[in-house]
Amino acid sequence: MSADGSGHVRLIGAPLPHARAWRSDDPLRLEGGDVLPRLQVTYETWGALDEDGGNAILVCHALSGDSHAASHDADDDPGWWELLIGPGKAIDTDRFFVICSNVLGGCRGTTGPDFLRPDGERRYGAEFPTVTVRDMVEVQRRLLDHLGIDRLAAVVGGSLGGLQALQWSIDQPDRVGAAVVIAAAPRLSSQGIAFDVVGRNAIRHDAHFAEGQYYDGPSPEAGLALARMLAHITYLSDESMRAKFDPTRLQPRAIETGFESVFSVGSYLAYQGERFVERFDANSYVTLTTAMDLFDLGEGPEAIRESLAKSRCAFLFLSFTTDWLYPVEASQELVDALVAEGRPVSSCIVESPAGHDSFLLEESMVLGKQIVAAFLSSQIGETGPIRVPEEPETDEPTSIFYTNRLDYGLILRLMPETGSVVDLGCGNGELLSILRDRGHAPLLGIERDASAVAESISRGIVTVHADVDSGLAAIPDDAYDVALLSQTLQSILDVVGVLREIVRIAKRGIVSFPNFAHRPLREMLQREGRLPKEEGLYAYEWYDTPNRRFPSILDFQELCTTLGIEIEDAIYIDSAREAEVTDDPNYHADLAVVAIRRAER
Amino acid sequence: MSADGSGHVRLIGAPLPHARAWRSDDPLRLEGGDVLPRLQVTYETWGALDEDGGNAILVCHALSGDSHAASHDADDDPGWWELLIGPGKAIDTDRFFVICSNVLGGCRGTTGPDFLRPDGERRYGAEFPTVTVRDMVEVQRRLLDHLGIDRLAAVVGGSLGGLQALQWSIDQPDRVGAAVVIAAAPRLSSQGIAFDVVGRNAIRHDAHFAEGQYYDGPSPEAGLALARMLAHITYLSDESMRAKFDPTRLQPRAIETGFESVFSVGSYLAYQGERFVERFDANSYVTLTTAMDLFDLGEGPEAIRESLAKSRCAFLFLSFTTDWLYPVEASQELVDALVAEGRPVSSCIVESPAGHDSFLLEESMVLGKQIVAAFLSSQIGETGPIRVPEEPETDEPTSIFYTNRLDYGLILRLMPETGSVVDLGCGNGELLSILRDRGHAPLLGIERDASAVAESISRGIVTVHADVDSGLAAIPDDAYDVALLSQTLQSILDVVGVLREIVRIAKRGIVSFPNFAHRPLREMLQREGRLPKEEGLYAYEWYDTPNRRFPSILDFQELCTTLGIEIEDAIYIDSAREAEVTDDPNYHADLAVVAIRRAER
Repeated sequence: MSADGSGHVRLIGAPLPHARAWRSDDPLRLEGGDVLPRLQVTYETWGALDEDGGNAILVCHALSGDSHAASHDADDDPGWWELLIGPGKAIDTDRFFVICSNVLGGCRGTTGPDFLRPDGERRYGAEFPTVTVRDMVEVQRRLLDHLGIDRLAAVVGGSLGGLQALQWSIDQPDRVGAAVVIAAAPRLSSQGIAFDVVGRNAIRHDAHFAEGQYYDGPSPEAGLALARMLAHITYLSDESMRAKFDPTRLQPRAIETGFESVFSVGSYLAYQGERFVERFDANSYVTLTTAMDLFDLGEGPEAIRESLAKSRCAFLFLSFTTDWLYPVEASQELVDALVAEGRPVSSCIVESPAGHDSFLLEESMVLGKQIVAAFLSSQIGETGPIRVPEEPETDEPTSIFYTNRLDYGLILRLMPETGSVVDLGCGNGELLSILRDRGHAPLLGIERDASAVAESISRGIVTVHADVDSGLAAIPDDAYDVALLSQTLQSILDVVGVLREIVRIAKRGIVSFPNFAHRPLREMLQREGRLPKEEGLYAYEWYDTPNRRFPSILDFQELCTTLGIEIEDAIYIDSAREAEVTDDPNYHADLAVVAIRRAER
Repeated sequence: MSADGSGHVRLIGAPLPHARAWRSDDPLRLEGGDVLPRLQVTYETWGALDEDGGNAILVCHALSGDSHAASHDADDDPGWWELLIGPGKAIDTDRFFVICSNVLGGCRGTTGPDFLRPDGERRYGAEFPTVTVRDMVEVQRRLLDHLGIDRLAAVVGGSLGGLQALQWSIDQPDRVGAAVVIAAAPRLSSQGIAFDVVGRNAIRHDAHFAEGQYYDGPSPEAGLALARMLAHITYLSDESMRAKFDPTRLQPRAIETGFESVFSVGSYLAYQGERFVERFDANSYVTLTTAMDLFDLGEGPEAIRESLAKSRCAFLFLSFTTDWLYPVEASQELVDALVAEGRPVSSCIVESPAGHDSFLLEESMVLGKQIVAAFLSSQIGETGPIRVPEEPETDEPTSIFYTNRLDYGLILRLMPETGSVVDLGCGNGELLSILRDRGHAPLLGIERDASAVAESISRGIVTVHADVDSGLAAIPDDAYDVALLSQTLQSILDVVGVLREIVRIAKRGIVSFPNFAHRPLREMLQREGRLPKEEGLYAYEWYDTPNRRFPSILDFQELCTTLGIEIEDAIYIDSAREAEVTDDPNYHADLAVVAIRRAER
């Protein structure tokens, strides 16, 4: 057995020509109490550090990744996040100094189970201590100290990398400007843990496991391959597996394999499993999946908020619709906790058929890349519109968010001169941008259309991807000076719930809506006997209108009274004449902009 | 090694005191071409066969079941479907003669891998030929021949048992009156197959597998336990695992186990795995899961219809909302295929948190039991209302299905005297019951409320659980003489789609709806400036009405013209005066009942 001074013996898998190793004899006490007397960290960097050191981004890798996140030149192998990192890319190595290191417990050059124990007698093997995501972050912190980086502009990661980004925000609040947390959750579900448990049991029950001391003989390849096959299923989605394997269900790929190869999906998994054992160590697999399973910011809003209480940075969360390992709802719990704490948190739920692996795939990251790019740019003070891809036309009422913004001016008239604002249904962030320019802060946009969310984030607006109908519960009482609901009332099913939320979360609500009792509408029903239509938000046919509610000014006033909501101020407009209406607005006005607040105050 | 004449060596697991074994030396040629020269089938029966033999029900078991479906007396062990089978239960052994046999390839007394090969030298082991669900059914058919049962009133099963019930309907169309197919699908998803593949690979890579000839030594217990642990995850749901394990995530149960026991879910799976190996044979596990994976009625509507083309029986499908192994959508594909063929098919999608295992659980089968009982009763000519459990009040527009049935009489006036009818939004089947009594046939109800579906089935009405907005595509052109849409138009989002479907699937559509241009409604908007209300279907507030559309008679007429739909006949009613309106019905009538058809005919 030959080893270098660090205890590192051999690298499993492809060589890492651009990686450097940093070694330290400073003992590391782990969260679980064990001590590692010395440490090696293998890392790669891209780009150059600014003189003020303000442009450093730490990229954290997922379970099976390593320091090679991207290629360094044209001759280099592509990295695992080639799609995101490089000159001119979302994590722009022309502007940022990017660092990626192999995690503690990994098997690609950082201290892990394949390293010699301090006594030099044998490898750690299965005796490598339990490490946590917190331990991984501490090792990265030491590496940054060594590199002379005081502060990160951002820490970015997906899956296990996302958990590290979260942990950075909590453990090193003064050293992180922003965290980009992709496909992650406060904790793995019991179902997710269960799959990991079966995988680890398969490794440990492999006849070659030898209690983890297999390095000099045959290794537990079958067990590790089984664990990988199983995990691989959880990285895909039911939908993507259908597309990939159903057409050729009984036509296995022509591969040499010791595993079952009856079904096409079986031959694919066999291939994935057998390739994986060539580049990964079984003990590392046990170590890293255990760290993922132990990561736990708590159950329920209170616990998660408490866990995140120390964080100070800006956040961006990306989740993917078909990810069932770290699902959208779990990512949303993190967003809600940060919203509850009034932190600057943006989020986007990205439509993708590709499941958990979406963050690694070019085709699933089209919007995600742009959002990450815009978010990171805004962290160094660069904002501006980004190109959002065309989306197919939809029947969803979302589209009406983009029309009839004539009421902005009226809303501004009812706004206080300063103060914080939440815009419910903020669209592309246009109104909030105007308010920012007028000095309002902090600002939060809530929007349910993904492309609009992307555009809003690109304007530098903190924007949460959520439905106004259900997404306001996380916002604390009186959190904002003003809550805006601009031309959205008529598309909301739970009108009562949303109005109650508006006066709960803000000192003043400003609600604009089209008046269904406007004179021409009344006359149309009276004279023609048809569901009334007129230009603007009621310009739809009875059978396909996206409107769900048909409020008149009087209806709205009466409902406010019923709900104990006071109307403080109002502007009623006849838009055709571009005139304000004071005489019987329920008859003469087609647009109402109303300022409301809780009556009991 | 000692064996009886059948080649059967020992029974794995608990004894079966009430089981009988039938042996045959009639060779069985399997679907895959192999021949089993002799056969043993272990089975149990409950109840007594009628003189005319018309009351036999075959119950088919799932992967890990056996012939012991229910206890035979108070001293007997409970069976795996104790909740459904017994005196006075859904499968009522006071009325039905119930048979359940261990499947071909099983390990509980029917010929399988644990049997001696014909040469008597050794067990079949892994050399036991591939069997299919069709082979299982053929063995059951032979057993019924032996028992002198010409025809089954019904064949009933869940999961693998449901696949057998489907196969019975196809292979023995003249011998099956009805099939109850629970938690099943035309084929397992690629994701589902993938989990089975990993499980089988775990068994085959166990050091004790010995190419399947492990019977005289240690058996591949770890591999089988791993397979079971993994499969068990797929039988539960994410939701049920959260409830069961999240509160005690890091508190494993105090069990002795050779498997990882760090997380509570891990200790639970370890226990499940280790108990399973005491009662199941690894080779059987491979055999039966392979049969499930190979079961394939095809992909897409055409293929599935073709597979089911030979079936002649009545069908009942139950599926469960959180079942992700044989999900609701897959069960629905079978329903759609049979609807497309005009077969009498009923279905219910049962709300249950318990995943695939729901069909085995008392608490998930409350409604399911009643539906099965009602369906089986109707098969022997007994129908009547069943007790449907109270459901919590819901804001869903469903509730309006149960009010305002005053239009029944008017609908009957526009009905032809005979002919077939599909009722879209049939509620509890009341109107269809009236039509049945008037001699209309065949009848189909479509309803989206589960309790109403149960009640409708209990009336003996063929009822599919589906949404009118999306569930009509399977019905062929001109399949019915009449399609009814009674007071449902105002709750439908896709009005155009549904109207087009009505005139596509039926020669005549009869649509009743409340008139939004009724005089008092017009006047209310005109005079009061509020969203109009009046008694009946428009008796809701603007902010919480379940109505999604507000059609007037004129609006409806104009839309029909636009869509190329001809209005053949109509009745307009002023319900307050209980009088028919002929003068300006759009002004004077509050209810319209309109007969429509495609104009081009």
